[in-house]
Amino acid sequence: MSRRRDPAELIDALVTGDRRALARALSAVEEGGEDARAIGRLAHRHGGGAYTVGITGAPGAGKSTLTSALIGVVRGVGDEVAVLAIDPSSPFSGGAILGDRVRMQDHALDSGVFIRSMATRGHLGGLSLATPQAIRVLDAAGKPWVLVETVGVGQVEVEVAGAADTTVVVVNPGWGDAVQANKAGLLEIADIFVINKADRPGASETRRDLTNMLEMTDLASEWVPPIIETVAQRSEGVAELWEAVGSHRSHLQSSGGLEARREGRLADELRTIVARTLELRAYELTGSDTVAKLRDDIAARRIDPYDAADEIIGGPNG
Amino acid sequence: MSRRRDPAELIDALVTGDRRALARALSAVEEGGEDARAIGRLAHRHGGGAYTVGITGAPGAGKSTLTSALIGVVRGVGDEVAVLAIDPSSPFSGGAILGDRVRMQDHALDSGVFIRSMATRGHLGGLSLATPQAIRVLDAAGKPWVLVETVGVGQVEVEVAGAADTTVVVVNPGWGDAVQANKAGLLEIADIFVINKADRPGASETRRDLTNMLEMTDLASEWVPPIIETVAQRSEGVAELWEAVGSHRSHLQSSGGLEARREGRLADELRTIVARTLELRAYELTGSDTVAKLRDDIAARRIDPYDAADEIIGGPNG
Repeated sequence: MSRRRDPAELIDALVTGDRRALARALSAVEEGGEDARAIGRLAHRHGGGAYTVGITGAPGAGKSTLTSALIGVVRGVGDEVAVLAIDPSSPFSGGAILGDRVRMQDHALDSGVFIRSMATRGHLGGLSLATPQAIRVLDAAGKPWVLVETVGVGQVEVEVAGAADTTVVVVNPGWGDAVQANKAGLLEIADIFVINKADRPGASETRRDLTNMLEMTDLASEWVPPIIETVAQRSEGVAELWEAVGSHRSHLQSSGGLEARREGRLADELRTIVARTLELRAYELTGSDTVAKLRDDIAARRIDPYDAADEIIGGPNG
Repeated sequence: MSRRRDPAELIDALVTGDRRALARALSAVEEGGEDARAIGRLAHRHGGGAYTVGITGAPGAGKSTLTSALIGVVRGVGDEVAVLAIDPSSPFSGGAILGDRVRMQDHALDSGVFIRSMATRGHLGGLSLATPQAIRVLDAAGKPWVLVETVGVGQVEVEVAGAADTTVVVVNPGWGDAVQANKAGLLEIADIFVINKADRPGASETRRDLTNMLEMTDLASEWVPPIIETVAQRSEGVAELWEAVGSHRSHLQSSGGLEARREGRLADELRTIVARTLELRAYELTGSDTVAKLRDDIAARRIDPYDAADEIIGGPNG
């Protein structure tokens, strides 16, 4: 059997439950390029049934342990589940991240569970474009639930987390300052807050900080993010978290918010693709020999970078 | 006296040491727009003498206290100094950040010190483009040292920190996991590591973690980032840090690295300006009415976002 297969063959196979085809399609998406595009195009037409749950938070918050515990709960009610573990850092940090992933291997022999790590840098638009493509593939494969785990709350992670229907933000007791500093970013994305490691000192203060933050904010929708306390390592509070995910899903469905959210995401994705494509062109434009002279002129302070950019693109209104 | 002044007048005034003109020019840069451009253009021709030191690290690491202590050391040797405190978060977090800034007000009455906070969101390219413009203005004003303080080690902060000649990364004892997770990002930007709050338990372990990380890495240059322990609140180790900045500066100057670094930065800035300008066009393109139908088609799964993007831009090779 050849290792490479035609995108259409891969999609036909993964739609019928072929795990190997699914893995290969995801690898193609991770690598980017023409195959990724063809796979995404075909998958987009097949999908629509998956519900995505984003799980994000700073390193060490216990996201992988929580995700693993959530898998147990989802399997307990009989549903299949896929996990996409997004690693925005470089290969250097592979050790730590892979160590975490091992915790999920409790579920390695369960054919109702599909776990995939993704760390891509070369892809057009990076993870913010590769992630929706991967979700599309998992959706086409008929996974009813896709858990998307991301590290951190930087801009890329916020974009990636924004690709989910319900976003869970994981914090720990004693994170008052960190919560404070990231307030705006957290509020923008959190549908549910989890205080994990809630058996440690400071859980009630963290709950109070989050509650104050929510009270002081004009929320964009009627949904008030609940605050769930968990001890993921002992699966405590995890069933409650899954209930909260279900409540949020019901809220989105009954309010029409789910459709609006998904359409908004697709519009964002479209805009990002257009922007990244144009950006690639910009790289090509500024890499050319004729630009070398402009760069010399900038360094010698004969021209400033903005006027030079206009010369490259062709005038401020060009 | 009118509040608004002509960019050329502002530059003429700030070059001769007019602090109010300097403040206004920086406000214009922060707001973006045509005045910002004109000011940057004029300032670019005047500058060249400033040396920039970036100070970055996670919230709570003690960057503001360290920066304030550094101001004391720089003033102690008789040099003037400007501080640009970059706040990438939204107005929500203003409280915490402004609280930190208060510590710097020790120097508020010293005319040899100029401190400015900057939090801009509307600007084309955001802080990664506003920061070099602001540095340009401070440079034109004849400041020999510009300290650029940024919060966090996300992508934006890395870009902003990369705008400095010497970048100082501040960590705290006990940050083993955080250091581990951000390894690649830290190594990419750190010329000097500071373990601040070094009187707390865990400083030696953090030093060991950083040393291991440096030993396991093929560094891009001959410079091996030193690890300085400080207790910024008591100014301990801060003179040593300033010596390390001086050593790094000497290294860059004697190796030709300073010129290469600055030219590389200008090339990056040029590329970012070109990309952001094209990205603005993408927003305009995808905002148009004719795109509304494409968005409906994507939502209805009649077309995928990549093919839709091609239709907007005009073909994959268009």
